[in-house]
Amino acid sequence: MNSFGLYFRVTTWGESHGPAVGAVIDGCPSGLKLSPEDIQKELDLRKPGQGELASSRQEEDTVEILSGVFEGKTTGTPISLLIRNRDARPGDYEKLKDLFRPGHADFTYEGKYGHRDYRGGGRASGRETAARVAAGAVAQKILTRRGIAVFGFVRQIGMIILETGEKGFWETDFSHAGISRIPGLRREIYSSPVRCPHSETALAMEREIQDASCRGDSLGGIVEVRAYGLPVGLGEPVFGKLDALIAQAVLSVGSVKGIEFGQGFGFADLPGSKAHDAYEVLNGRVHPASNRAGGVLGGISSGEPLIIRAVVKPTPSIRIEQKSVDRRGRPVTVSVDGRHDPCIAVRVVPVLEHMVNLVLIDLLLRQSAAQGVKHG
Amino acid sequence: MNSFGLYFRVTTWGESHGPAVGAVIDGCPSGLKLSPEDIQKELDLRKPGQGELASSRQEEDTVEILSGVFEGKTTGTPISLLIRNRDARPGDYEKLKDLFRPGHADFTYEGKYGHRDYRGGGRASGRETAARVAAGAVAQKILTRRGIAVFGFVRQIGMIILETGEKGFWETDFSHAGISRIPGLRREIYSSPVRCPHSETALAMEREIQDASCRGDSLGGIVEVRAYGLPVGLGEPVFGKLDALIAQAVLSVGSVKGIEFGQGFGFADLPGSKAHDAYEVLNGRVHPASNRAGGVLGGISSGEPLIIRAVVKPTPSIRIEQKSVDRRGRPVTVSVDGRHDPCIAVRVVPVLEHMVNLVLIDLLLRQSAAQGVKHG
Amino acid sequence: MNSFGLYFRVTTWGESHGPAVGAVIDGCPSGLKLSPEDIQKELDLRKPGQGELASSRQEEDTVEILSGVFEGKTTGTPISLLIRNRDARPGDYEKLKDLFRPGHADFTYEGKYGHRDYRGGGRASGRETAARVAAGAVAQKILTRRGIAVFGFVRQIGMIILETGEKGFWETDFSHAGISRIPGLRREIYSSPVRCPHSETALAMEREIQDASCRGDSLGGIVEVRAYGLPVGLGEPVFGKLDALIAQAVLSVGSVKGIEFGQGFGFADLPGSKAHDAYEVLNGRVHPASNRAGGVLGGISSGEPLIIRAVVKPTPSIRIEQKSVDRRGRPVTVSVDGRHDPCIAVRVVPVLEHMVNLVLIDLLLRQSAAQGVKHG
Amino acid sequence: MNSFGLYFRVTTWGESHGPAVGAVIDGCPSGLKLSPEDIQKELDLRKPGQGELASSRQEEDTVEILSGVFEGKTTGTPISLLIRNRDARPGDYEKLKDLFRPGHADFTYEGKYGHRDYRGGGRASGRETAARVAAGAVAQKILTRRGIAVFGFVRQIGMIILETGEKGFWETDFSHAGISRIPGLRREIYSSPVRCPHSETALAMEREIQDASCRGDSLGGIVEVRAYGLPVGLGEPVFGKLDALIAQAVLSVGSVKGIEFGQGFGFADLPGSKAHDAYEVLNGRVHPASNRAGGVLGGISSGEPLIIRAVVKPTPSIRIEQKSVDRRGRPVTVSVDGRHDPCIAVRVVPVLEHMVNLVLIDLLLRQSAAQGVKHG
Repeated sequence: MNSFGLYFRVTTWGESHGPAVGAVIDGCPSGLKLSPEDIQKELDLRKPGQGELASSRQEEDTVEILSGVFEGKTTGTPISLLIRNRDARPGDYEKLKDLFRPGHADFTYEGKYGHRDYRGGGRASGRETAARVAAGAVAQKILTRRGIAVFGFVRQIGMIILETGEKGFWETDFSHAGISRIPGLRREIYSSPVRCPHSETALAMEREIQDASCRGDSLGGIVEVRAYGLPVGLGEPVFGKLDALIAQAVLSVGSVKGIEFGQGFGFADLPGSKAHDAYEVLNGRVHPASNRAGGVLGGISSGEPLIIRAVVKPTPSIRIEQKSVDRRGRPVTVSVDGRHDPCIAVRVVPVLEHMVNLVLIDLLLRQSAAQGVKHG
Repeated sequence: MNSFGLYFRVTTWGESHGPAVGAVIDGCPSGLKLSPEDIQKELDLRKPGQGELASSRQEEDTVEILSGVFEGKTTGTPISLLIRNRDARPGDYEKLKDLFRPGHADFTYEGKYGHRDYRGGGRASGRETAARVAAGAVAQKILTRRGIAVFGFVRQIGMIILETGEKGFWETDFSHAGISRIPGLRREIYSSPVRCPHSETALAMEREIQDASCRGDSLGGIVEVRAYGLPVGLGEPVFGKLDALIAQAVLSVGSVKGIEFGQGFGFADLPGSKAHDAYEVLNGRVHPASNRAGGVLGGISSGEPLIIRAVVKPTPSIRIEQKSVDRRGRPVTVSVDGRHDPCIAVRVVPVLEHMVNLVLIDLLLRQSAAQGVKHG
Repeated sequence: MNSFGLYFRVTTWGESHGPAVGAVIDGCPSGLKLSPEDIQKELDLRKPGQGELASSRQEEDTVEILSGVFEGKTTGTPISLLIRNRDARPGDYEKLKDLFRPGHADFTYEGKYGHRDYRGGGRASGRETAARVAAGAVAQKILTRRGIAVFGFVRQIGMIILETGEKGFWETDFSHAGISRIPGLRREIYSSPVRCPHSETALAMEREIQDASCRGDSLGGIVEVRAYGLPVGLGEPVFGKLDALIAQAVLSVGSVKGIEFGQGFGFADLPGSKAHDAYEVLNGRVHPASNRAGGVLGGISSGEPLIIRAVVKPTPSIRIEQKSVDRRGRPVTVSVDGRHDPCIAVRVVPVLEHMVNLVLIDLLLRQSAAQGVKHG
Repeated sequence: MNSFGLYFRVTTWGESHGPAVGAVIDGCPSGLKLSPEDIQKELDLRKPGQGELASSRQEEDTVEILSGVFEGKTTGTPISLLIRNRDARPGDYEKLKDLFRPGHADFTYEGKYGHRDYRGGGRASGRETAARVAAGAVAQKILTRRGIAVFGFVRQIGMIILETGEKGFWETDFSHAGISRIPGLRREIYSSPVRCPHSETALAMEREIQDASCRGDSLGGIVEVRAYGLPVGLGEPVFGKLDALIAQAVLSVGSVKGIEFGQGFGFADLPGSKAHDAYEVLNGRVHPASNRAGGVLGGISSGEPLIIRAVVKPTPSIRIEQKSVDRRGRPVTVSVDGRHDPCIAVRVVPVLEHMVNLVLIDLLLRQSAAQGVKHG
């Protein structure tokens, strides 16, 4: 099942060390201005950084638009996006052929498919997400025109946490950020090598990663993604709820092991009297006076910012030796000295942003369908 | 979007205070023995308990099988399940007609649909989940024959936590539970009014709920669900990953605000060297030596138990007064003295179990499709 | 696969001699006035007529709306429709239990499912179409508000043909029928026991059926369905083309063995110079000057009337003896003296009309989705 | 909606004069040997012939496999197929930019999308079908291993008809063709420039086309497609019936205006006593003694050959002048002197064959899913 979305349907394909990865978008409305640059700028945000914080695999990630765009505008027909793999080094992986690396999908792919592309994780590689980002960039263009803006940042790496709660960074800094501020905020976030907008915390995170990297180890983290400017009404009860689809989208990204909305796991020890958002009237419009719910109620957007947090496990490919077995069951020692990010949470930020974009565009189209016929 | 699953497709319908709720199952294989009792026994587990811990709405939840079963066996055609609402008291809700209750879906349904059934939450009511449990009971029958068993329990209510970690309850009690022990374990769990298998903790949880109830307040909690006996190979990369579909399924249940797999949010501060599961050989079979991943790697089941935890927000309908506004924006005070469970986490246990059943049956059918053609 | 449509998704269920048949509609916009009578009047058109021309099974076909409608208007949630089987006489079919009746689905259901409901064809019975008509009636209400009207009629029974071509009935009578005339035209058609609007031809058809019926035989026929008032633009290339979806919808009706659009099979011996429709300007608007294409070009509606013809095979249940075998391969003689229409084409008219309605509403919603986001 | 199939899901993309066309296959089982040559040989059958009977556009149609195949075998992940457009001459179409050509999709694409790629029909071009054939070739490989063989041929061009009825070509020549004979039969068919297996009729057809071509005109025709070796049981009632899905698949091919199964439109004037197939026992197995139904009953395959006929309209691009208007409504004359086949029916044969392959593989997987779980 390599397609996502019902109305704005994205199908991705490709392996880490095959000739290319790509995406086909089916359902993009016609008449949208779209250039390779629109997509390229988002792909560039997904690239690894420099130095110890990042993989040394260097991919240009140049996108080609093979269909669906004519004279600079979408035609309503499928948009095929192609990204060639240039720095693939399949030979590096020969020794992993018979090995089940801890924390990787080697064992389960072998069990499911029998025959697998073992080179760099094949389809299970993070490289597959380049196609998602490319497709998400198209969604983002439409959402932007509708006043919807999505951004993400790293909230925790190892023991270093960016407090964004009542007394923390968020309250004072982003909470009232107009949508117009968001592109600037994203630039700021991406200028940080750890994708953290608070420079002091960012510095501590960098050190944390460097320390782990020196030890030959890796780190997990938490990424927060927010969407501003949503209308009331996105989400399709009961199985296409906004939060259900976001959860599917976010958990479909490799290494993500959990998600929460608004107060999330904090709801477990909150009494009902302190857990919910009352309504008030502001500028003649009823809206929630607080946002503990994280922008979604009954699976439908409330008009408040959508706030999600996803936990990302540590990179499984580390230099520290791990014991395992090979496919014949013989004991082996795994120590990976390759081109790997020591903290995937950092890399995953744009991917989660664009998965949220893909959910939102799909729900926006579904909502438009009903509205169009209703008022017709 | 009121359907779930691709191969074992369940469509639910119905409102809390309409004539009935129901489900249609499309894709159930033929030849399966199925009686109303098979479904009824699961519906009975979903019923509220007694006294202060539970809603006083008393529904018989009697299921009728209207199609798809002939002479006690499924025919392969759609199975239509009907559950009449008998203790509906729509009149009780007249006063809520123009009100946006904090924490409920009133505001977002109004915003999305314009016209809504305000009686007891309409479609957004927990009552809708009776249809899911009925459908899940059919899935469960097939899974049982394949040696797959799912069960859930309450792990946390308010401040009371059942420790199931390395030194806690789980390690000593369930971890090596054979699948054959699970039906008994479920009976034990459901004999506890708070669905907690550890009697001391259960007692503390009961007191916690009673205290909250006395104060006119409610509590959140955490539910854990596990599936044993999975083969290696369930899950369809990249958007139909086992964890992605479970996340969609679980977040589609009202009041759930987050989910995690295995170590979940704990992965954020684990180093890579302690986060992953090495492999070992046991009885000539390679398998993970530990289960930090919670049974899923690269979106595919590893053969180890699937372990998920979901956080459930506190019941929004409480006696304590909450300030809000009505649809015209006039300030109102909401105090609900009705038929509501003070802790939804307790009620949600069988619903989450059966949502997991629905994901597993669907993935099992998908896996069978490929296997069947391959070996043909 | 008992669901049809992507945006206005209809799931039907039920067997001929089970307790009921029904449909669930998912995706109907909210705010639409809908009463049981709206649906009942269409179900009434599907009922068999009287006398020798029709089955003597007498079903009231009373529809219950179990969900999705509140205070007389749709809420946007699933609409569950239930029609109880009242005149079911399962006992009549005991002797058919082990028999493969020629022309029926007995043999293929047995082969596919192993275990089947043999009573009156079970799920393969024409009775299942009551659920389709009920769902189609909801679609029709929305289409009517958008100025779209669909109607069907019998064009051929046995050797009797209603000529609607260049010099025939159609050219002079319906071709310029405004949409406003269509409800009247439908009443007229349904007042004919053979659903043929031309009284002389209708009389000949009636005689044809009576003759066949006397001989213990049955007849095939051709039904034509038309849709007026379509906007330019319905249909989703390349697999959701208007004609492709109509073909799926129409062939999904039992007994239909073929379909054609516009000149249809007549295109085989037309030269290109006489096969296509030039464009002209009328009232300042470009449109096709003729309609050989039958209203669809490149899979997209052209704004001209949609014209389709479907061939319906003769009723397989006849009094004349047919030789066959039973499930053990023993020779048997089949002679059916039951409650069967001697010409299914007559009964199928409203079913085909409503299948066209279901395709159109779905495509209208898809088109609205794109338009809504585009102009937003 | 550019995807087809539920289990073996094919998504096509690309325009006639864009950089490429392609397909992504999602759901192909792993472990299947697959090389570019397997696909290339089918693409080669789709290429135009030589001389007056064919378009002079010369495309190599070289296929690249970009993913899903590793070391010569499928991996179960999406198979991305790419075919570059090499002989595109977009400049040729500049003059058609503002024109609505009769019989083409220009007018309806303009109406639907506003912005369209007018070069050679863009997405509506027959060139899109190269991607379908490439995907179908993969399906064909699996079907072959299961003993299923599909082939098509031209049955009628203009007034020249290949009689395959009771006294015609079919009865004596193909009817008892074992499946093993079919590859040879296909080679024979494709060695005929008009794809007709009967050499005398083929010659007459060639002359018919040449005559039309000389007059600057074009011709319609009828293509027959058959599938042998089907098991009993393919097809998913009620909306995924074998015939319903075949009808959707076949009508989704440009220029096809109708389809019939078995006796098809001939059923209209057959009495029931002569229309159906009795059963008999042969080699201890019950099966239909004749095949008027065309291999499908109640939407499920009967084990007899699937027989369909599709009517194909004449090429709309002809040299004879046709009157039309441009997008501003000004009268124009259209005369096309380009690279066009005078009879599309000839070109469409492999496309229809492979659309049938795509339906069959999808239904085979669905059937396997149910069987696998049932017997498990």
